[in-house]
Amino acid sequence: MTQFTKERRILGIDPGTNILGYSVIEQRNKSVEILTMDIIVLGSKEEMSTKMKHLFDKIVEIIDCYHPDMLAIEAPFFGKNVQSMLKLGRAQGLCIAAAFSRSIPFVEYSPRKIKQSITGNGAASKEQVANMLQRMYGFEDLPKYFDATDALAVAVCHSYQKELPEEPKSNIKIPKAKKTSWAAFISQNPDRLK
Amino acid sequence: MTQFTKERRILGIDPGTNILGYSVIEQRNKSVEILTMDIIVLGSKEEMSTKMKHLFDKIVEIIDCYHPDMLAIEAPFFGKNVQSMLKLGRAQGLCIAAAFSRSIPFVEYSPRKIKQSITGNGAASKEQVANMLQRMYGFEDLPKYFDATDALAVAVCHSYQKELPEEPKSNIKIPKAKKTSWAAFISQNPDRLK
Repeated sequence: MTQFTKERRILGIDPGTNILGYSVIEQRNKSVEILTMDIIVLGSKEEMSTKMKHLFDKIVEIIDCYHPDMLAIEAPFFGKNVQSMLKLGRAQGLCIAAAFSRSIPFVEYSPRKIKQSITGNGAASKEQVANMLQRMYGFEDLPKYFDATDALAVAVCHSYQKELPEEPKSNIKIPKAKKTSWAAFISQNPDRLK
Repeated sequence: MTQFTKERRILGIDPGTNILGYSVIEQRNKSVEILTMDIIVLGSKEEMSTKMKHLFDKIVEIIDCYHPDMLAIEAPFFGKNVQSMLKLGRAQGLCIAAAFSRSIPFVEYSPRKIKQSITGNGAASKEQVANMLQRMYGFEDLPKYFDATDALAVAVCHSYQKELPEEPKSNIKIPKAKKTSWAAFISQNPDRLK
């Protein structure tokens, strides 16, 4: 049996036009640790050029802070609104290029594939995905925005690929619960509690 | 009357999913010189990730070669196909981020605004835009793809903005015709002549 031995860090991104979720995980053998999981708020009233610059700088900052080896990004779900699709495409292209600017390759996963690999059900709701991740990694509170857990989901989905010799879900070592993570987030961002 | 004195270089991009047009112009006072005008062919059969990497590398290469001060990019025209809009948005986001990666700001112009500023008619055809540019800058042959002249158009459209004190079209100094430009392109790419 091949063993996955090399440590790798995966940046997961759930692209959005106003709120974008991101997470960086570290995978070592069969264990996965969450290094960060948060959202970038772009503000619907800001000018497109300001939003794009902010988003680019933020993604590059995350990369320079956590040094991921790979970007795993969620493919936008095809909606009916052409304007939304253009904006989503632009956000996705920008994130991918931010990774390229630091020589990091990317891989794209469909929403269905991500949900399937986390919950076993490709049609699972965002809440079901978040609940499963919470059980797997023991974080105390669910984030206010599912964009953050969706970003974690795409990173974890990628951690299951290739080097791992078998379906690793049941073997994942659950790290000690990071009880302070969301509490800290809330204390730093009290205005997000409504 | 304010005079525009500083030399500036503008990279114009007409984003596309399979063929992308680009041009770099140098504006000094009221004269505009075309430094380059060409297309990037992305190949419809290539994988999305390969195409995106190729596109990013190429845009960065153009920036590193010509050192533009600004990216002027055409806003995609809203079609009805959501998949096309996603791809166009992705290409646009990637180009903008390539500029950001070299600390170059961008500005976006609508197709209507570009056509208006080149031909005086916001509903002009691509051919009319190309013909007007050909008359203005005296290049001998029209390029095979209007993506290249569309990219020149957005760069020229930006050259008319802000610093120039008056409608500069009639005052533009027409540089000596670059007779070899498209001939050289064709000799280097004989397969594009069908």
